[in-house]
Amino acid sequence: MRVAESCTSMRERLVEFSREFDRWLDAALSACDGVPRRLLDSMRYSALAPGKRIRPFVLVRSCEIAGGSREDARSAAVAIECVHAFSLIHDDLPAMDNDDVRRGQPTNHRKFDEATAILAGDGLLTLAFEILTRGALDTARGAMDGARGGLDAARTVRLVRQLSEATGPAGMIGGQMLDIAGESQSPSAPRVKRIHEMKTARLFEAAARMGADCADADEPVSAALARYGHGLGLTFQIADDLLDLTATLGDLGKHSGKDQAAGKQTYPACIGEEPSREEARRLAESTIRCLDAFGPEADDLRELTRLVVERRS
Amino acid sequence: MRVAESCTSMRERLVEFSREFDRWLDAALSACDGVPRRLLDSMRYSALAPGKRIRPFVLVRSCEIAGGSREDARSAAVAIECVHAFSLIHDDLPAMDNDDVRRGQPTNHRKFDEATAILAGDGLLTLAFEILTRGALDTARGAMDGARGGLDAARTVRLVRQLSEATGPAGMIGGQMLDIAGESQSPSAPRVKRIHEMKTARLFEAAARMGADCADADEPVSAALARYGHGLGLTFQIADDLLDLTATLGDLGKHSGKDQAAGKQTYPACIGEEPSREEARRLAESTIRCLDAFGPEADDLRELTRLVVERRS
Repeated sequence: MRVAESCTSMRERLVEFSREFDRWLDAALSACDGVPRRLLDSMRYSALAPGKRIRPFVLVRSCEIAGGSREDARSAAVAIECVHAFSLIHDDLPAMDNDDVRRGQPTNHRKFDEATAILAGDGLLTLAFEILTRGALDTARGAMDGARGGLDAARTVRLVRQLSEATGPAGMIGGQMLDIAGESQSPSAPRVKRIHEMKTARLFEAAARMGADCADADEPVSAALARYGHGLGLTFQIADDLLDLTATLGDLGKHSGKDQAAGKQTYPACIGEEPSREEARRLAESTIRCLDAFGPEADDLRELTRLVVERRS
Repeated sequence: MRVAESCTSMRERLVEFSREFDRWLDAALSACDGVPRRLLDSMRYSALAPGKRIRPFVLVRSCEIAGGSREDARSAAVAIECVHAFSLIHDDLPAMDNDDVRRGQPTNHRKFDEATAILAGDGLLTLAFEILTRGALDTARGAMDGARGGLDAARTVRLVRQLSEATGPAGMIGGQMLDIAGESQSPSAPRVKRIHEMKTARLFEAAARMGADCADADEPVSAALARYGHGLGLTFQIADDLLDLTATLGDLGKHSGKDQAAGKQTYPACIGEEPSREEARRLAESTIRCLDAFGPEADDLRELTRLVVERRS
C-alpha cells in the first residue's frame, strides 16, 4: 500500500518534470538554424514523442542532490535525451529490431522513410554534443571561474567524455550490437548481463554522473550517484524484459512479445519469469542502498527505483 | 608542366602524410577497450581503408601554419577522419545511395551486414567526440595553462563545438538529407550549391578552423584558414561530381556514373561539363587567394587546391 502510494506520487512528479523538460527539449531543437525542414521534422517527431524522461530526471536530480541548480543540468539533460531518442530511432530500423510502433505512434522510418530515419538519428546524436557546448563557449576563451550562463570548459569536457563513452562502441552502441548478435545464440545469464550493462546501465550511470559533474561534485558523491544510476539501469532493463512478456501495446506504446519471437537474450529467457522478478527486486534494494550517504533529498531517486520495478508501462 | 610537377610532389607528400596519419588512427582505434569484436572489426575496416586523408591533412597543416605542433593536432585529425568514415558508411547504405564498392573494397554493409554497418557508423561518430576529449581530461580539473600531453579544456570545447556543428543536421548530415531529396527535384544551381556547402564544405572548413584552434590561433588567422577550407571543400565537391562523369571504378575505388543514374543534383547536370570545369578552376584560384596572408609555409595548401582540381581519382 505504502509503496503503491509513493509510486503514484512519484509518477505524478515524473509527469510534472517531463512537462518542464519537454519545454527545454523543444527550445533546444527550435534553436537549430539551417536544418532541412524534413530532417528537423523527423528529429522533433521522435525526440518530442511522449516519453518517461527518466534519464534526464536522474541527471537533473543528481545535480540538485550534489548541490547544483536545475539550470546547471539543463543542457546535459537535453543532450542525454537526444542520445536516447537517436538510439530508439536506429534500434527500430528494419535492419535492426524492425519495429512499427514506438511511444504509441509509428516508428520514425514508418512515419518518414528509412533514409530520413537514419539521418534523424545521426542528427540527434551529433546535436547532443553540440548542445553540451552551448553556453560553455561564452566562457571558454575567458576565465575558468564558473561564469554565469553556462558551465565552465572543464566541466563541459567531462560531460562530453561521459556521454561519448557511455554512448559509444564500448557502451550503448556496443550493447545494441551484442543484443542483435545474441538473437542467434543460446540464452546465457552472463551474456544477458553484459548486454544490459552496455545497452542500458552505462547511459543511466552517465546520467547520474553527468548530473554530479554539472554540480562540480566531489568524487565520492559522484561515484555514489554513478553506482545508483548503474543499478537503476540494470533494474530498468530487467523490468523492460518482463514487460515485453506480459504487457500490451496499449500499456507500452510499442509491440510486446517481440523479444521472445526474435530469440533475444533476456532474463526471463535465461532464468524464468518469477526468478527475474526476484532479481529485479533484489537489484532495486541494492540500488537504493547506493544512496545511503544522502538524506531525504534523495527520496525521489529511491522512489523512482521502486517505480521502475513496479511499472506497468 | 609546372602544375603537373607540383601536383606529383604534392601527391607524394599526401601519401607520406597518410602513412603517419594511419598509424595515429590505428592507435586511436586500438585504444578502444570493451568493444564487441565484430563492431570494432567493422569500424576498423572502413576507417583504415585506403583514403586520401585530405581532411586530416588540412587540419594538421592549418595547425602548423598557425604556429602549433603536429602533436597538438593529432586527436582532432583522427576525430575528423572518424566522422568522414562514419559518413561514408551511412551514405553507402541501401536506404541511402546503395553503393557496393568504396575505396576499392566492398562497402561496409556488403562486407558485414546492414545492422553492423549502421552501428559501426554510429560508433565512429561517437568515438570522434570521445577522442577529442582524450588527453584533455588530465588537465581539465587542473590549471588551464596549456599543459603537456593534451589540449586545455577551453580549446577542447571549441573543437567539440566546431566538429558537431559542421557534422550535424545543419552541416554534413543535413547536406546528405538534401542530396537524397534532390534526386526527385529538377537540377538547380542554387540547390547544388547549398548541398555542396553543407555536405562537403562545412567539414573542410571545420578541418581548417579546428587546426587553427589546436594552435590557439588568433581569430584573423583562424578565419582566413576557415575560408580556405570552405573554398577547398566546394572545389573538391565539383571535382567529385566531374569524376563521377568521367572516371572509372579503377580510378575512383567506387562506381562512377551513379549521380546521373540517380538523378543527383550536380554541377555538370545543372550547367554542363565544361562550365563546371571552369567553375572548379575559378573557385580554386579564389581559394588559394584566401592564403595570401601566409608565406611559403602555406605552399602545400596552395598546391593541394591545384591537385584537387586536377585529380583523376
